[in-house]
Amino acid sequence: MSVRVAVAGASGYAGGEVLRLLLGHPDVEIGALTAGSNAGERLGALQPHLVPLADRILVETTVETLAGHDVVFLGLPHGQSAAIAQALGDETVVIDCGADFRLTDPAAWQTFYGGEHAGSWPYGLPELPGQRDLLRGARRIAVPGCYPTVSTLAIVPALVAGLVEPDVTVVAASGTSGAGKAAKPHLLGSEVMGNASAYGVGGTHRHTPEIVQNLTSAHGAPVAVGFTPLLVPMSRGILATVQAPLLDGVTAEQARDAYVRAYADEPFVHVLPEGQWPQTQSVLGSNAVHVQVAVDESVRRLVAVAVVDNLAKGTAGAAVQCMNLALGLDEVTGLSTIGLAP
Amino acid sequence: MSVRVAVAGASGYAGGEVLRLLLGHPDVEIGALTAGSNAGERLGALQPHLVPLADRILVETTVETLAGHDVVFLGLPHGQSAAIAQALGDETVVIDCGADFRLTDPAAWQTFYGGEHAGSWPYGLPELPGQRDLLRGARRIAVPGCYPTVSTLAIVPALVAGLVEPDVTVVAASGTSGAGKAAKPHLLGSEVMGNASAYGVGGTHRHTPEIVQNLTSAHGAPVAVGFTPLLVPMSRGILATVQAPLLDGVTAEQARDAYVRAYADEPFVHVLPEGQWPQTQSVLGSNAVHVQVAVDESVRRLVAVAVVDNLAKGTAGAAVQCMNLALGLDEVTGLSTIGLAP
Amino acid sequence: MSVRVAVAGASGYAGGEVLRLLLGHPDVEIGALTAGSNAGERLGALQPHLVPLADRILVETTVETLAGHDVVFLGLPHGQSAAIAQALGDETVVIDCGADFRLTDPAAWQTFYGGEHAGSWPYGLPELPGQRDLLRGARRIAVPGCYPTVSTLAIVPALVAGLVEPDVTVVAASGTSGAGKAAKPHLLGSEVMGNASAYGVGGTHRHTPEIVQNLTSAHGAPVAVGFTPLLVPMSRGILATVQAPLLDGVTAEQARDAYVRAYADEPFVHVLPEGQWPQTQSVLGSNAVHVQVAVDESVRRLVAVAVVDNLAKGTAGAAVQCMNLALGLDEVTGLSTIGLAP
Amino acid sequence: MSVRVAVAGASGYAGGEVLRLLLGHPDVEIGALTAGSNAGERLGALQPHLVPLADRILVETTVETLAGHDVVFLGLPHGQSAAIAQALGDETVVIDCGADFRLTDPAAWQTFYGGEHAGSWPYGLPELPGQRDLLRGARRIAVPGCYPTVSTLAIVPALVAGLVEPDVTVVAASGTSGAGKAAKPHLLGSEVMGNASAYGVGGTHRHTPEIVQNLTSAHGAPVAVGFTPLLVPMSRGILATVQAPLLDGVTAEQARDAYVRAYADEPFVHVLPEGQWPQTQSVLGSNAVHVQVAVDESVRRLVAVAVVDNLAKGTAGAAVQCMNLALGLDEVTGLSTIGLAP
Repeated sequence: MSVRVAVAGASGYAGGEVLRLLLGHPDVEIGALTAGSNAGERLGALQPHLVPLADRILVETTVETLAGHDVVFLGLPHGQSAAIAQALGDETVVIDCGADFRLTDPAAWQTFYGGEHAGSWPYGLPELPGQRDLLRGARRIAVPGCYPTVSTLAIVPALVAGLVEPDVTVVAASGTSGAGKAAKPHLLGSEVMGNASAYGVGGTHRHTPEIVQNLTSAHGAPVAVGFTPLLVPMSRGILATVQAPLLDGVTAEQARDAYVRAYADEPFVHVLPEGQWPQTQSVLGSNAVHVQVAVDESVRRLVAVAVVDNLAKGTAGAAVQCMNLALGLDEVTGLSTIGLAP
Repeated sequence: MSVRVAVAGASGYAGGEVLRLLLGHPDVEIGALTAGSNAGERLGALQPHLVPLADRILVETTVETLAGHDVVFLGLPHGQSAAIAQALGDETVVIDCGADFRLTDPAAWQTFYGGEHAGSWPYGLPELPGQRDLLRGARRIAVPGCYPTVSTLAIVPALVAGLVEPDVTVVAASGTSGAGKAAKPHLLGSEVMGNASAYGVGGTHRHTPEIVQNLTSAHGAPVAVGFTPLLVPMSRGILATVQAPLLDGVTAEQARDAYVRAYADEPFVHVLPEGQWPQTQSVLGSNAVHVQVAVDESVRRLVAVAVVDNLAKGTAGAAVQCMNLALGLDEVTGLSTIGLAP
Repeated sequence: MSVRVAVAGASGYAGGEVLRLLLGHPDVEIGALTAGSNAGERLGALQPHLVPLADRILVETTVETLAGHDVVFLGLPHGQSAAIAQALGDETVVIDCGADFRLTDPAAWQTFYGGEHAGSWPYGLPELPGQRDLLRGARRIAVPGCYPTVSTLAIVPALVAGLVEPDVTVVAASGTSGAGKAAKPHLLGSEVMGNASAYGVGGTHRHTPEIVQNLTSAHGAPVAVGFTPLLVPMSRGILATVQAPLLDGVTAEQARDAYVRAYADEPFVHVLPEGQWPQTQSVLGSNAVHVQVAVDESVRRLVAVAVVDNLAKGTAGAAVQCMNLALGLDEVTGLSTIGLAP
Repeated sequence: MSVRVAVAGASGYAGGEVLRLLLGHPDVEIGALTAGSNAGERLGALQPHLVPLADRILVETTVETLAGHDVVFLGLPHGQSAAIAQALGDETVVIDCGADFRLTDPAAWQTFYGGEHAGSWPYGLPELPGQRDLLRGARRIAVPGCYPTVSTLAIVPALVAGLVEPDVTVVAASGTSGAGKAAKPHLLGSEVMGNASAYGVGGTHRHTPEIVQNLTSAHGAPVAVGFTPLLVPMSRGILATVQAPLLDGVTAEQARDAYVRAYADEPFVHVLPEGQWPQTQSVLGSNAVHVQVAVDESVRRLVAVAVVDNLAKGTAGAAVQCMNLALGLDEVTGLSTIGLAP
């Protein structure tokens, strides 16, 4: 099988990571590579690690350049995906790495992003209960945000098993690549090395409603989510600590069992052995999620920790995983569970 | 005034930072520098940044080498301070950067450290309500732990002002120097660069009872504390996010006012302007604490963020600040509020 | 084809990277994993990124545990390979990632390593002129050191083409993983982050005679090499600047041509387009070498820059490449040319 | 004595570091703080570490805002200093942290910077033989570039003592802050962390003619300089390796003696004890220079290594040191020799 794939936004981090993964995918032929202001440049000048594609010239992101592919990945600033997606027919699978089609609630979209809500597509987190079936054969898929992916996977087993109150606190430390490749002073190396900072505190980060949506869906009733993102000095990786009050009588053993059971058949989610805590280095470049859970008896709270590579399972890896599902390929094709460490 | 000072554990990070600060202190003369296995070595071989002391030879840590100084700073592994402190007379001010004399509750000591409880000394966090007076003229001072310092200062104003329930969640990201200079594989540069990890999850970190003690003291009633430490890729700095449920009716404005009022006269604690969030880089090498507070209405929780340099205000800076108080010097002598950035 | 492979030193960085690569190699079955003091432990506790092997138990490094495999990779401290290699028969391909069999000159061994010289094996740098043929079907292979690999590949084309005097200056900046996983104070994260340092200055680094050997062999006459290694704050990667005086009349165009020609058919060496300079990030985790060359007319010197991942092409990737050659497999099997960036 | 000082370019890295140092200078009163596009903003929003000046408002950089101060520091893009300097009378000491007045040779200026040559001012490297006297009482001073400072100090003792041929090779690894605070994609944290790269290879970096000028001046005859800069993952610090062929008969002892003698009375230059090599961490935030020298007998080359903090002794520290000389203050006032480590 040879699937012809285009990547819009190929000069950015999401697009570059999609390409890195597709270069190792046995069933894919890489077609058009498009960009905005970088159109006309050699890919090698912008993504020097993608040597096999170094001499490809970026073309402009238009319906015309993207049409005629079996799959189109969109790595575009939010608000730009809808027009393109509508113009591409259903013969093309469109996988949006951006935020445009993630939220089902127009009011939440309006509050956190502004502008008109484009609608919602099947949500590309196959590990959510029942979600995988919605992705098989889908023609449009919204890839989850990086923080929502790791936060959701960290706590859903506890919600589904009925172990905790629907009152979740997330503090997640992210590397800088999640902020993209646009040059902003506060993202300069000189500013981020040797530095940890908080931002979007008080529930203002745009990924907040997406986490709420996921947890509410898994719980079957509203879940309150307090979300605090941190920026820490590394390029890739997110580590999320996710906490919720334990219901009466729930034990550490029950908590652990719920996680082991929830992820027993998941190819990419690995519940660590007792006593071993996740580290981002273990999943760099891979589609793996490492999870651990503990019970803090002194405050009767469940504390789960999960890590992902924000660009891989947090964006581009999930996108490829979803493509595999959409096309009926083996879900793990072209994806690794082994991180680059040290 | 010339104060003659000895530093025990001068080859470690706490001892080195005490010396770095004392070299800029106008009233201090540096006496004996002691070490354990490094006794006999030139200080310059172990602390190459301390050029003015490069040719000093480390002597063994004994009562004899430390006696006869006006002030002795102890930067020793826990369990080693008591014997020395007892043998030094009250003519010597002893300031312990270790944990031995921080906890007032022998049971908490037993649970988290094991071994016999040595007792407790005046606790060296002058910014705690009423605490400064206990430190003026004191002959024995226990310097707080780094996590307790930053966590306590982040939430005490809200507790004192009666804004939150006594149910506090701390997630704090620390640089690696807090773990000291003992060579352990998981602290190697190759392991920590590009890596974020969780440890001591579930309330098992030794700083937990110290945070509980501080908050309970400030609140005047028991405070529950869930504490999760993270290790992030930087040498220095801690960023703590500290959260608690808001009491009914409390507003963001009240929260902000409480913090501004609490720290109005504190020389080292700086409440940032609204909308500006703390970053560790701003306080590196200084005794400053930067704090910000927000209200997350969607979960009715107060979220405070504070940063310190774990080696400076988190250890050695606090130690020098306490020395100043003990000796009746101006509290800020030899200490800076200006971090080294970028 | 299924090749049964053992890895000695599986808990170290070289061994871990060999395993990471072998897990993606289609023709390999992973057999015994051995260690020294870590024998008896789960691999997952020491190499948490190697999830598919997490439950494997490390066994002791002995002839018995290693015998009976088609291929044995040795990732051992120098001086330990000879005894094992001799006891394994010629039915086993032995690939030594250590230094024991790299040097042909016993005197050089004696000077730089001390102890008895074990002898020399075919040198695993297929990109050296004529070297590939010596590796096909070999039963014993010495994997080059990381600095020698990158330094040699940076300058050999100029020597072979007769463009420069045999007087070579190498300054190479390395990440910390090259120093291995043994816990030493100067390799702690707190020491290496935010820090660049020189070491082994003045020609004392053990990789010096190996570079001399390679360049002398390529040049067909003695080449003088001044080598200065630097430690910089990253886990992986080496960037080498290699300079030599240009012979009269040699032009920049000739220099570029020599490099393009030398590496035209090399699957892993990529001469960058004019004006683009190598960066280590582009090759992380891959077997790629990126090279660029310029002429500094003001001093009539050729300046070449090359990068490798010290653990991949600099150690474990080269080892797998050599295994492929030894077994008659396609040389590139299981190896990537695409780095993990950003 | 109270000196009234203005800083132009106060929102940049050079300006920020000048302010950090001036805040610790006992004889200085900080006057106007000016900026280009950041005029009108609070300094605290741009330099959050400079808490005592947080509420200062940046004014536009004009002759009017800068006039009437005793000293004006210029931290401006090159080409902007001349107009301002001419309009300020000789009653104002002007210290230019930029490149405009460093080069004496208009042709070198034209080649490396382009545009008209503004002229040259006394060069602010007091450690150059004879240079200190030119700076005492000077009204205009050109602060050296960071690479030239560290490279020059590393090799001048050998040139002055007549130990080496005038054929110098510099490879210098720099942190990212030397590139300034302007947001460029290749300086993003995601691009620089975990990454080492070469740039300006082949003698094209603008600091090349400045190094040539310094060495030629010290040597009293032309010195050829091959200069290769590297970017490594840290905010601050430069480590330079500087090499030159030894003249016949010169010994390692002579080399060492030359360095020890040359810097015996220099307050900021520290020749390390034999066997100890410089690291940038030791000088962070300080005005110190650490130097070491070795002889590589195998190639008969002198190898010197020096480190500075590029923003401190490499820019702002030198600027303050020069101000002290210009005003007749003690040269070391407000400057430290103790770096922030770890």
